[in-house]
Amino acid sequence: MDIFLQAAIDEAKKGLQEGGIPIGSVIVYKGEIIGRGHNRRIQNGSVVLHGEMDAFENAGRLPTSVYKASTLYTTLSPCSMCSGAILLYGIPKVIIGENKTFLGEEALLKSRGVKIEVVDNQECITLMESFISNKPELWNEDIGK
Amino acid sequence: MDIFLQAAIDEAKKGLQEGGIPIGSVIVYKGEIIGRGHNRRIQNGSVVLHGEMDAFENAGRLPTSVYKASTLYTTLSPCSMCSGAILLYGIPKVIIGENKTFLGEEALLKSRGVKIEVVDNQECITLMESFISNKPELWNEDIGK
Repeated sequence: MDIFLQAAIDEAKKGLQEGGIPIGSVIVYKGEIIGRGHNRRIQNGSVVLHGEMDAFENAGRLPTSVYKASTLYTTLSPCSMCSGAILLYGIPKVIIGENKTFLGEEALLKSRGVKIEVVDNQECITLMESFISNKPELWNEDIGK
Repeated sequence: MDIFLQAAIDEAKKGLQEGGIPIGSVIVYKGEIIGRGHNRRIQNGSVVLHGEMDAFENAGRLPTSVYKASTLYTTLSPCSMCSGAILLYGIPKVIIGENKTFLGEEALLKSRGVKIEVVDNQECITLMESFISNKPELWNEDIGK
């Protein structure tokens, strides 16, 4: 198991323990995690802090050169908002835990030259399947459904 | 002058007074402003709170039906992150103060069925021209350049 995907999964689990939606993300630069985050809709009442957005926010203001040499790991296929942030900052590579429970804007990212790798990780799938089955209304709210 | 575009401009000016990047936004539902915001990169050290994102965050958690019947006003053409948020929540209509100093993802939004109106407002243009000319490094940071 990739230690960075594991770190993203650990973030997702932290979110779940807080009563939140179990999606986590880390941003990696030169072999080090420079930003970690997890979905904060329920915990913070936030409609913008998806896991990836929270990782960007926690990484803080960075030089463009850092974003352009970083890899973003996320437990779930990134939605249009998070994909837009990936494009805004020019993240060149995204490693995705799974896209079975939700397929985000992978095609858009690829069309803009972002390298995408979907790991199809069973733990990521189980986390989301279980959450969606237990709290479908919260999940639908998170994806604007 | 549209009172809602004026409210977005007022937000942009508030941001400028705080030492921030002068971009503002409001979200309007049934003739009432339900969320206001302005860019908070400098004030809060935030890399996700562009004007539009701040308006979403301040509107708070809302039923899908509200987003789908709302109009978003922004003083500047929305970047990929803010456009992604507009798509995520299904905002059907976006009124844009100007797109001369920065052209965001208007084509993507249109291709997904979002109605776009560019007002070409001189005050919005002047606010950005002046800021970009005074602090080009901060502006470039905000758009990942």
